Amino acid sequence: MELVNIFYYLAIILIFSKSFGLLSRKIGLPQVAGMVVAGVLVGLLGNLHRDDNFFLWFFMKPTGEEMDILHVFSQIGVVLILFSSGLETNLGDLKKSGFAATMIALAGVVTPMLLGTLGCLAYMNGFSEWGEDKLLNSIFVGTILAATSVGITAETLKELGKLNGKIGQTIMSAAIIDDVLGIIALSIVTGIRGGGASQIWITLLKVFSFFAFSIGFGILLRLYFKWEERKFPHKRRTSIFAFGMCFLFAFCAEKFFDVASITGAYMAGIMLSGLDDTKFVDRKVVVSGYMIFSPIFFSYIGISADFSGFNLSYLLFAITFIVLGILGKIIGCGLTSMPFGFNFKESATVGCGMIARGEVALAVYAAGKSLIAPVNGVDPLVATIILIVFSSILCPSLLKLLFKEKPTELLSPQADNK
Amino acid sequence: MELVNIFYYLAIILIFSKSFGLLSRKIGLPQVAGMVVAGVLVGLLGNLHRDDNFFLWFFMKPTGEEMDILHVFSQIGVVLILFSSGLETNLGDLKKSGFAATMIALAGVVTPMLLGTLGCLAYMNGFSEWGEDKLLNSIFVGTILAATSVGITAETLKELGKLNGKIGQTIMSAAIIDDVLGIIALSIVTGIRGGGASQIWITLLKVFSFFAFSIGFGILLRLYFKWEERKFPHKRRTSIFAFGMCFLFAFCAEKFFDVASITGAYMAGIMLSGLDDTKFVDRKVVVSGYMIFSPIFFSYIGISADFSGFNLSYLLFAITFIVLGILGKIIGCGLTSMPFGFNFKESATVGCGMIARGEVALAVYAAGKSLIAPVNGVDPLVATIILIVFSSILCPSLLKLLFKEKPTELLSPQADNK
Repeated sequence: MELVNIFYYLAIILIFSKSFGLLSRKIGLPQVAGMVVAGVLVGLLGNLHRDDNFFLWFFMKPTGEEMDILHVFSQIGVVLILFSSGLETNLGDLKKSGFAATMIALAGVVTPMLLGTLGCLAYMNGFSEWGEDKLLNSIFVGTILAATSVGITAETLKELGKLNGKIGQTIMSAAIIDDVLGIIALSIVTGIRGGGASQIWITLLKVFSFFAFSIGFGILLRLYFKWEERKFPHKRRTSIFAFGMCFLFAFCAEKFFDVASITGAYMAGIMLSGLDDTKFVDRKVVVSGYMIFSPIFFSYIGISADFSGFNLSYLLFAITFIVLGILGKIIGCGLTSMPFGFNFKESATVGCGMIARGEVALAVYAAGKSLIAPVNGVDPLVATIILIVFSSILCPSLLKLLFKEKPTELLSPQADNK
Repeated sequence: MELVNIFYYLAIILIFSKSFGLLSRKIGLPQVAGMVVAGVLVGLLGNLHRDDNFFLWFFMKPTGEEMDILHVFSQIGVVLILFSSGLETNLGDLKKSGFAATMIALAGVVTPMLLGTLGCLAYMNGFSEWGEDKLLNSIFVGTILAATSVGITAETLKELGKLNGKIGQTIMSAAIIDDVLGIIALSIVTGIRGGGASQIWITLLKVFSFFAFSIGFGILLRLYFKWEERKFPHKRRTSIFAFGMCFLFAFCAEKFFDVASITGAYMAGIMLSGLDDTKFVDRKVVVSGYMIFSPIFFSYIGISADFSGFNLSYLLFAITFIVLGILGKIIGCGLTSMPFGFNFKESATVGCGMIARGEVALAVYAAGKSLIAPVNGVDPLVATIILIVFSSILCPSLLKLLFKEKPTELLSPQADNK
C-alpha cells in the first residue's frame, strides 16, 4: 500500500459523494442514495484503471489494504452517526415508544427471516429434496435479512428532519432494538450450527451484561461530564473526551460483549443525552462526520460491491432475496404498528422506514461466511450488497414521499445541510 | 488486525493526549508537548500488555497493520494542520517576509546538515580513517536534520496565537521553504549515491512544476469556489469540496512531483486563503483536526518510538545528533535573521521556532534507509525519534518563554482552545 493513495481516495470519495448527493437531492432523492451511487461509481471506474493510459489511469482501484483503511473510516463513520443519534435521543420519547418499538422490531426481524428462509429453501428445491444442511443454509440467509441499518435510517430521518417526531422515534427505537435482535438471531443460528443450545443463553447473558455495563459505567461518566460542563462550559476537552467515551463504548461492546460496536456508540450517546453541553458536543460529532467519515461510510458500501461474475442465476436469487427482504420488513413492521395507534399511512411509513439494510447485514454475512456453503453456487454476498444499495435508495425515497404528503409535520430547519 | 481494536486506540489516544495536553499546559508547557508524551506513554504501556492479567491486558500494543492505520490518521492530521495554516496565511505578509524567509530557511538547512555530517563523521572516526562510504553515510544523517516540522511549528504558533505576527509568519514561511529545501537535499544525496548529478535537475524541475501546477490549477479552483460562495454562501458543500481539493493536492504533490503531501495541502490552503468563506471552511478543518486527527498525529510520534535495545553507544550518538540538530537551527536561522531587521531576542525566537523536527525527518529517514549502513552499528532511527520528541517539547517551550516576555504582542483570543 502506498499511503499517498489514501489521499486520492479521500479526495475522490468526498468530491463524488457530495456531488452525487446534491444531484440526487436535485431530482428528489435523499443525499444518502446519491452517496451510495457515488461509491458504486468510484468502484466501477476503478475497474477501468489502466496504467498505460493517463485518463484511465486517473481512476484507481483500492487494493486490499487500502480497502481495509477505507473500511476503518466507514466504521468510524457509522459509529459517529450512531453516537450522534444517541446524543439527539429524547429519552422520554423513547420510553413512551418502548413497547411498541420492541414489538415492531420483533416482527421486523421474524418476518423477513422467515420469508428469507422459506424463499431460499424453495430456491434450493429444499422442500422436495429436504436436507438439514439446506435448512441451516436457508436460515442463515434469512438471518442476513434480519437487521435494519440504523446508520442509514438515522441519516435519512435526520436529513428529512424527522428524527424526533413520533414516527421517527419509533423507527429509530425499533431499528436499534432490531439490531440487538439481529445479533441474537445470528448467535442462535451459529450456536445451532456449532451444536448446543447453551450458546444462546450465553449470548443473551452477554447482551444483558452489556446494557448493565453501559448504563452503570455510563452513569458514572455522565456525572463526570456534568461536573466538567459546570466547571469548564463549552470547552474542546468536553467534546474530545465525549469522543473518547464513544470509541471506548464501541470497543467494549464488541470486544467484551460480542455486541456490535455501533450499539456501544449509540449507548454512549444516550448516556450523554440531555446535558447542557450535549448540543455543543453533537455539533462537533456532526461536523467530523459529514466532513469525512459519513461520506466514506455510504460510498464504501457502493465501492465494495463486486458485480463481476454476475449471471442469471445470481439475478434470480438476488431478486427473490431483495423482494422478500423488503416485503418482510414492510409487512412485519407495518402490520405490527397498526395496533399501536398508527393509522394506515403511518404504519406504512414505519414499515418503509425499516427496510434499509447496511453494516449489520454485512457483519452477519461476514460472521457466518465460514459456516455456509454457497446457495446453488451463488454466494449471497452480491445479493446482500445489492439489497443494501437498493434498500438504501428505496428507504429514503419512500420515506420522503410518505412524509412529504403529511403537511401537519413541518420539516425542522437545518442550517447548512446542503 | 481486528478492526474493533482501532476504536480502543482512538479512545485511549484521545483521552490520554487531551489529558496530558491539559496537564502540560497547567505546568506551563504547550499542549503539543503533552500530546507527544501521551503517545510515548501509550507506546510504553503497550509494552506492559499481558494476555493473562486484566489490568495489564487493558494496555494494548498496536500491531503492524494497526500502526499503519494510525499512521494514515496521523498523516491526515498533519495534512489538515498544513491546510489550515495555508488557509490562515496572509499572502501579503508572506510576500513581505519572502526573501528573509528564504535566506533563513537556507541557512537553517545548510547549518544542521553540515554540523550533522561533521559530527557523524567524527563519531565514526571518519577523519582519521577516511572513506567515501562514511562520508555519504554522514551526509545522509546530516540530511535527516535538515527539515523543520511545519506541522509542529504551525500548531505551536497557533496555540500561542502567534501564527500571523511578523515573527510567526517568518518562522512559518521559512519552515515551509525549508521543507522544500530538505526534500531537494534528500534528492541530491540519494542522487549522488545513485550516481549521476542529472537527478538533481530532475528534482528541481519537479519542484518547480509542482508549484506551477498548484498555482495554475489552484487559480481555476479558486474561481470555482468564488462562484460557489456567492451562489451558495456558508454551505457544507463548500467545506467538503475544499477538503477534497486539499487531499487532491496532497496526493498530486507526492504522486506526480515527489514533493511531500503536506506541501500540497499547504498550497491548497494558500490558494483558498482570503475568500469570503475561508474562515467558514477553516473552522470545519480545525474541528475535524482537533477532534481526532491532530491528537493522533502528535501521539503517533510518541507511540512509534521504540526504546528497546538502547545502550551507551546509542545514547552518545543520540545526544550528539540532537545537540547538533538543535544548535544548527538556532545558530543558522538565528544569525541569518539578524540582518533582516530582527533584534537579538527576535532572532533567537526565529531560531528556536525552527528547531522542531517531525514528519519530514522521518520521511527522509524512510526514503534513505535502504541507502545507508548503520553508523557504528547504530541505526539513526531511534536518535531521530528522540530528536522529534525532544525538539517538539523544547521548541514550543522556548517559544512560549521568548514570546511571553514580550508584552507588546498580545495573545490573540482563542475561543474554546482548552
